[in-house]
Amino acid sequence: MRSAVQTGVGRIEIIERPVPQPGPGEALVRLRAIGICGSDVHYYIDGRIGDAVVQFPFVLGHEPSGEVAALGAGVTGLAVGDRVALEPALPCGQCETCRTGHPNCCPSVKFLGTPPVNGTFEEYHVYAARQCVKIPDNVTFEAAATLEPMAVGVHAMNLAQLRMGDRIAIMGCGPIGIVTAMAARAAGVSFIAMTDPVPSRREYAKRYADLVLDPRAVTAHEEIKRAATIDVAFEAAGDQGAIDDATLCVRPAGKAVIVGIPAVDQISLWVHLLRRKELTIIMARRSNFTLEPAIRMMAAGVIKPEEIVTHRFPLERVAEGMDLVHDIRDGVLKAMVVI
Amino acid sequence: MRSAVQTGVGRIEIIERPVPQPGPGEALVRLRAIGICGSDVHYYIDGRIGDAVVQFPFVLGHEPSGEVAALGAGVTGLAVGDRVALEPALPCGQCETCRTGHPNCCPSVKFLGTPPVNGTFEEYHVYAARQCVKIPDNVTFEAAATLEPMAVGVHAMNLAQLRMGDRIAIMGCGPIGIVTAMAARAAGVSFIAMTDPVPSRREYAKRYADLVLDPRAVTAHEEIKRAATIDVAFEAAGDQGAIDDATLCVRPAGKAVIVGIPAVDQISLWVHLLRRKELTIIMARRSNFTLEPAIRMMAAGVIKPEEIVTHRFPLERVAEGMDLVHDIRDGVLKAMVVI
Amino acid sequence: MRSAVQTGVGRIEIIERPVPQPGPGEALVRLRAIGICGSDVHYYIDGRIGDAVVQFPFVLGHEPSGEVAALGAGVTGLAVGDRVALEPALPCGQCETCRTGHPNCCPSVKFLGTPPVNGTFEEYHVYAARQCVKIPDNVTFEAAATLEPMAVGVHAMNLAQLRMGDRIAIMGCGPIGIVTAMAARAAGVSFIAMTDPVPSRREYAKRYADLVLDPRAVTAHEEIKRAATIDVAFEAAGDQGAIDDATLCVRPAGKAVIVGIPAVDQISLWVHLLRRKELTIIMARRSNFTLEPAIRMMAAGVIKPEEIVTHRFPLERVAEGMDLVHDIRDGVLKAMVVI
Amino acid sequence: MRSAVQTGVGRIEIIERPVPQPGPGEALVRLRAIGICGSDVHYYIDGRIGDAVVQFPFVLGHEPSGEVAALGAGVTGLAVGDRVALEPALPCGQCETCRTGHPNCCPSVKFLGTPPVNGTFEEYHVYAARQCVKIPDNVTFEAAATLEPMAVGVHAMNLAQLRMGDRIAIMGCGPIGIVTAMAARAAGVSFIAMTDPVPSRREYAKRYADLVLDPRAVTAHEEIKRAATIDVAFEAAGDQGAIDDATLCVRPAGKAVIVGIPAVDQISLWVHLLRRKELTIIMARRSNFTLEPAIRMMAAGVIKPEEIVTHRFPLERVAEGMDLVHDIRDGVLKAMVVI
Repeated sequence: MRSAVQTGVGRIEIIERPVPQPGPGEALVRLRAIGICGSDVHYYIDGRIGDAVVQFPFVLGHEPSGEVAALGAGVTGLAVGDRVALEPALPCGQCETCRTGHPNCCPSVKFLGTPPVNGTFEEYHVYAARQCVKIPDNVTFEAAATLEPMAVGVHAMNLAQLRMGDRIAIMGCGPIGIVTAMAARAAGVSFIAMTDPVPSRREYAKRYADLVLDPRAVTAHEEIKRAATIDVAFEAAGDQGAIDDATLCVRPAGKAVIVGIPAVDQISLWVHLLRRKELTIIMARRSNFTLEPAIRMMAAGVIKPEEIVTHRFPLERVAEGMDLVHDIRDGVLKAMVVI
Repeated sequence: MRSAVQTGVGRIEIIERPVPQPGPGEALVRLRAIGICGSDVHYYIDGRIGDAVVQFPFVLGHEPSGEVAALGAGVTGLAVGDRVALEPALPCGQCETCRTGHPNCCPSVKFLGTPPVNGTFEEYHVYAARQCVKIPDNVTFEAAATLEPMAVGVHAMNLAQLRMGDRIAIMGCGPIGIVTAMAARAAGVSFIAMTDPVPSRREYAKRYADLVLDPRAVTAHEEIKRAATIDVAFEAAGDQGAIDDATLCVRPAGKAVIVGIPAVDQISLWVHLLRRKELTIIMARRSNFTLEPAIRMMAAGVIKPEEIVTHRFPLERVAEGMDLVHDIRDGVLKAMVVI
Repeated sequence: MRSAVQTGVGRIEIIERPVPQPGPGEALVRLRAIGICGSDVHYYIDGRIGDAVVQFPFVLGHEPSGEVAALGAGVTGLAVGDRVALEPALPCGQCETCRTGHPNCCPSVKFLGTPPVNGTFEEYHVYAARQCVKIPDNVTFEAAATLEPMAVGVHAMNLAQLRMGDRIAIMGCGPIGIVTAMAARAAGVSFIAMTDPVPSRREYAKRYADLVLDPRAVTAHEEIKRAATIDVAFEAAGDQGAIDDATLCVRPAGKAVIVGIPAVDQISLWVHLLRRKELTIIMARRSNFTLEPAIRMMAAGVIKPEEIVTHRFPLERVAEGMDLVHDIRDGVLKAMVVI
Repeated sequence: MRSAVQTGVGRIEIIERPVPQPGPGEALVRLRAIGICGSDVHYYIDGRIGDAVVQFPFVLGHEPSGEVAALGAGVTGLAVGDRVALEPALPCGQCETCRTGHPNCCPSVKFLGTPPVNGTFEEYHVYAARQCVKIPDNVTFEAAATLEPMAVGVHAMNLAQLRMGDRIAIMGCGPIGIVTAMAARAAGVSFIAMTDPVPSRREYAKRYADLVLDPRAVTAHEEIKRAATIDVAFEAAGDQGAIDDATLCVRPAGKAVIVGIPAVDQISLWVHLLRRKELTIIMARRSNFTLEPAIRMMAAGVIKPEEIVTHRFPLERVAEGMDLVHDIRDGVLKAMVVI
């Protein structure tokens, strides 16, 4: 089989490897589509994200779908030929954090395609069978490969505990901002304001948002407050200005959910302005028990995350896809490896 | 002006009355559409609901929309010609229940069209201006006259605090069951099971539900559990069998929201079956701060409650509409007086 | 070793058995104190509770404390000589109910001393090491043997999500009512009303309650409402009258937590009275993640559940203790086997 | 009557004024004890806090108790001679923030003793009767004058929605830190860690805390994590280091409540460390519906906030008390004007 192996900083090589065999409780999955995430790009370009450092050779990719090609001993509830998405999070399952319903915050959680766990930019991958989630016939492989980011957007809504008809703001119109908007529309909001400095992204966001602003051209939080009372804001840009806009635009007794991942170690808050309105700030951590609900919502037609896919690449051109995502060129929102 | 006055049990007469004048803080509203509610029918047929007894002459009707025809002194934020819905609940606004955000449970709440407060089956009605809620141009008077029941469905969702992609059941496919289903669809559920003994209502419910059952033909809670894991059930039939189905079909650690109003004083629960799954039961009380969100959702196209209107009557035939609703004839879901 | 074996309905015999050996992951616990619970008494007297039927021979007892006498292979975090309480609940740990933080509602949960899992009215017991919870030096074995009911009271508080200074009512002054009152006092309530038909229990309850009533002598819910606005009521009697008092005495937008276990299959509710105040009813299921917090609270002196122990029996007189509890004689609140 | 009037920055003069007369709905209160708050000191020393600027002459003081000396027309529920505390917050009562139960976040809230509303460092004060809260006989005037800060601590607990037996940390051992600790003890926590750089405050805090640290001598968040798993942390120092300690010491899926008021406009957060544990940060705003619960808890002996009073001054020496609080001299925790 072919595997897209990162062999150094900024270097990916297509290498022939033997197809692995599934052990007890494992499944061999023939991969069909794998989304390219911003964190893949960071590891590819820099060889690290903060204190998580890639040891080469390494395989990136944590947004995969495919079909079951073989099963190890003792697997139940899964059959050869089943169409699946892979749950990338690997919590310990034993600690108090896991047992009380927060495996996404497990201090020893591992994650597919994140050092030291090899990912799925390859033709076949062996994975724990219980982490393979079946997808129904009306969900395409490409749609299934958008499930991981979609689950992040869905989780953000669960954290926000919206009331129906709430009016929200989303800072950032990248892939996470857009899936957050999709999730919000599905949650019954009545107004969405969005912001992004990139024109193509603002243009795309108009499909979901009632108001789209360039935060470099206007004081976004003031414009948004003029347009509507914002009950909850979602920060999906990973940027200090976006954090300011998100926290400042919200009404008294409102909430801000921080979904984006800043490049810096520290962010700042306008403490008195936030204190006077008793703001609640929730720092979202990936997703939690939202992969299967997201699949059900996709199957029911409630959300259509495949709409974010703008570019497709064959496996051997994954590096090209990463460069595209890195540069935010050609109106890219989500690039995907399709095998 | 003409007023449809209840002059006795089962008797409504069209009477000419002078158009009233708005006092300070009041608005004169020219009514355009008024929904006929099941409780209107109860007061019309029986002259009472429980210990609430009609003193004749009385005017029923609490689901009105119209346009502002005149304003009393000191009214701000409202202009002659504004299109409005009337918020029917009249809480005291001073008690601790009101001040802590639960005016719907105010022990001294009054309610439009409910003894002793005259209602709106008439051409003009004077009402507190602050209870007149403006509706945008893209919401019709008929749609606006469905706001009160719609707000009940929306409130039921808020009480349920759904997680995205939840799977729900709704017992009862009458007007309240249907608006609850609409609200649930808008809230991002991924599966709806509904039940009703009336064939025309089951047929109508198929627009919103994935599974529709006749509770007289099958053991509904068992069939529903076979079809899906139900996270939350909504009882919207006001019936012991529906309460049993709602409470029994829910998963462990799930919730049942009782929206329906039974004709009897006591209901029963299968205590051990519910206890073992730590069921939470929420007894919904009308609606709470959901009229304006419902308007926003209507304006945004998220919900379309006007779809429940099956029959229209001119003011002078309101009694005919009541009889139709009482008999559940001709596939009636929501009958409406249109002026 | 000696074991108090139930060999038939109403028959317990002390039988000599070999001391069992702990397998991998197990601990041999030398028991020191075991509380006698009402459910032990039901199994002893009737041989069953509902559809849970004892197969003789059987050992009852699920409120144990003791010290570790030996360890099987692979046990970490526990040493011979450690003083422990045994967590009686045995959830599957794998189902969605468990994984989302509700193992107490696990559909396949088993429970120590409940058919078919033998209990601890004996000198030694082998148990999963991870279910043995260490107790600090300042918590006596007798106190530790009250942990299981205490955790039920603590769980009831968590379910109620009290606000500080809330005023509560507790129906029932038996052991569960009293630990609920202890937990409530520790939770910062400012007023407790309690009810019980048994004079000795009412007398005992005065240590914790501001108002104690005989529900056979007065209309308790009316008297309680006259005395204070009740934010949350806890039903700990398992009795229809107590359920009525609990649900009727609560303020608008309040809550009732049903902790007691009725002898009958169905309970009834005054639906309109509860609906008008939008009551939330929570059916509590044993306890959930409250054993260790209860130990910490005991160690910190915040709660003193050992105060409920009124009678002590040696192992060979356990049946005598059960009869005492069954008859509610001699002012018994909690009887305990002390070895 | 005598009034302690601020006539300039750092200048307070005792001035003879006529006793005011209560208008309709008002009460004349003869003041008996008034706490000196840190914000009083800020206005006294600097003439301003941020954009709130004192216009001289002005009277400070917002933590008063006293007795009703006269009543204006139309007052019910209050009698001459009643012992009362004054609720200092003056929300509009009409906006959506107020009506939905968050008057503490009302955008147009006013506050006693805060520009432009004159306060109570004087012998008599006229105030809205409905803002005068009766205190029971077993609550002294001095205790009642600690109610306002106590209500802040109680509100912080309500915001935190603690589970019983939670382990908490409180950064800051000043008056607010101590009342927060009192409230936490009353809420059933099992462990409290506290920090403060001032030795006398650390010494005092040992009455309430299990662990007290000097944040200048140790890395407090690390020491605290070693000592216990912290479920919720409360920042009550208004200091960047305290905010870091509070947010960093909390367990995964935990909460930090920011109660302190920093002197600077912006605070910073270690975003990745907080994000990985999905921290919820709640910015507390004064208190909300906790004055009356705090009175009930005091009357019931659950909390004893009068324990924080370390120094007493007659009215004419109020400036001396302010200086003492400003310098944190002589082990001052709460200084009070006693008339």
